[in-house]
Amino acid sequence: MKTINSRKTIRKYTKRDVSESLLRALLEKAERTPTMGNLQLYSVIVTRKAEMKAKLAPAHFNQPMVEGASVVLTFCADFRRTTLWAENRNATPGYDNFLSFLNAATDSLLYCQTFCNLAEEEGLGTCFLGTTIYNSKAIIDALQLPRLVMPVATITLGWPDEDPTLSDRLPVDSIIHNETYNDYTPARIDAFYTPKEQLEENKHFVEINNKETLAQVFTDLRYTKEANEAMSKELLKTLEEQGFTKN
Amino acid sequence: MKTINSRKTIRKYTKRDVSESLLRALLEKAERTPTMGNLQLYSVIVTRKAEMKAKLAPAHFNQPMVEGASVVLTFCADFRRTTLWAENRNATPGYDNFLSFLNAATDSLLYCQTFCNLAEEEGLGTCFLGTTIYNSKAIIDALQLPRLVMPVATITLGWPDEDPTLSDRLPVDSIIHNETYNDYTPARIDAFYTPKEQLEENKHFVEINNKETLAQVFTDLRYTKEANEAMSKELLKTLEEQGFTKN
Repeated sequence: MKTINSRKTIRKYTKRDVSESLLRALLEKAERTPTMGNLQLYSVIVTRKAEMKAKLAPAHFNQPMVEGASVVLTFCADFRRTTLWAENRNATPGYDNFLSFLNAATDSLLYCQTFCNLAEEEGLGTCFLGTTIYNSKAIIDALQLPRLVMPVATITLGWPDEDPTLSDRLPVDSIIHNETYNDYTPARIDAFYTPKEQLEENKHFVEINNKETLAQVFTDLRYTKEANEAMSKELLKTLEEQGFTKN
Repeated sequence: MKTINSRKTIRKYTKRDVSESLLRALLEKAERTPTMGNLQLYSVIVTRKAEMKAKLAPAHFNQPMVEGASVVLTFCADFRRTTLWAENRNATPGYDNFLSFLNAATDSLLYCQTFCNLAEEEGLGTCFLGTTIYNSKAIIDALQLPRLVMPVATITLGWPDEDPTLSDRLPVDSIIHNETYNDYTPARIDAFYTPKEQLEENKHFVEINNKETLAQVFTDLRYTKEANEAMSKELLKTLEEQGFTKN
């Protein structure tokens, strides 16, 4: 995993396909990821057809990666397969609740990340689309996901056609807490965030958006309270429709 | 990542410590994992002290890995740091909702899995504890996690002192769906699950538990409807207490 040190999100891909055999091998290898009770509470929907990418694109705010990538992968929390297995084996499943959704989402996200680490080691480029849980209903409709299946992550995958600069990260001390949570004083916030705020690209970002601070770009434009709360309501409604909110 | 092919959960560790410098290097490398808007919505609580492991153990049903491992890592969905940053920068955050919890949980789980892939490449053994979301309130109390911080995964980490057999996995065709969801007929369920059901260890598992089928061991003993629904209620209550359910 030496590739991890220079890992970048790739949004532009060449026209070269990701072969079926490579994709399958990576999806199979990633199955070694730990999973709850060895139940593998996930499914992956593979999108290769242009018409299906076009159907998915609006759910991802028409970001060009969706139609530009060789493959789009939608990772789903899936308690349906396990539930059907139980029903076919004279057993009574009880996985239509919120805890079970979070169990399956966990399985699915861990699996997704191992897949990405493996794919990047092969030289493939990936882009993680956070939009999946913003517009989950549209994705469910496009991919015909039944009850007890909920999309939690989307990856666009292809051979890189760009080499962006490495993005910054917070100092590791900002995320480590020894023994108990070490709360963030204003002085610690300054120490951890000032280097990020002083990057030329971030200063530029603040300027072109007519904001005073980088944080305001996030709170006022990228991830606003109003949009979050509206999407949060939709997400809970969709979770209920998919059958995950008995409790 | 050649280690992935023989990846096993390790529950027994030697007395050798995981050094501070190695742990820190791995936590830092894992920061390359993709993250929402580059906000890094996670924190990691490092438990090394025996008294703290003893405090955490009951929340993990006293599984011996917790007190037997060199290090216990609790990965948390953390919107607190970002919220405090915003508040310190004249910005108005709106991340006390369910969508934001799932955003932060996603960041945290992806980060956790890259960390595990890296740690295993170094020869370390890990065990993922699903109990974290079963007893999150007890973990929050032990680790003193404030509002907008929620534990979502725990890893025990150490140098392996066992070499268990490789566990089985479902055939990759059972998790792949091309273009749209390919629902599971009884015939497909049989094809995918029969090899697992016929493993000697699983037959033995059914027998010692006096059950008719392997699925019944899961539904009647390991993950029952009653326990899931009770824990699901607790989980939602705890999410509310941590401030994540404004919507």
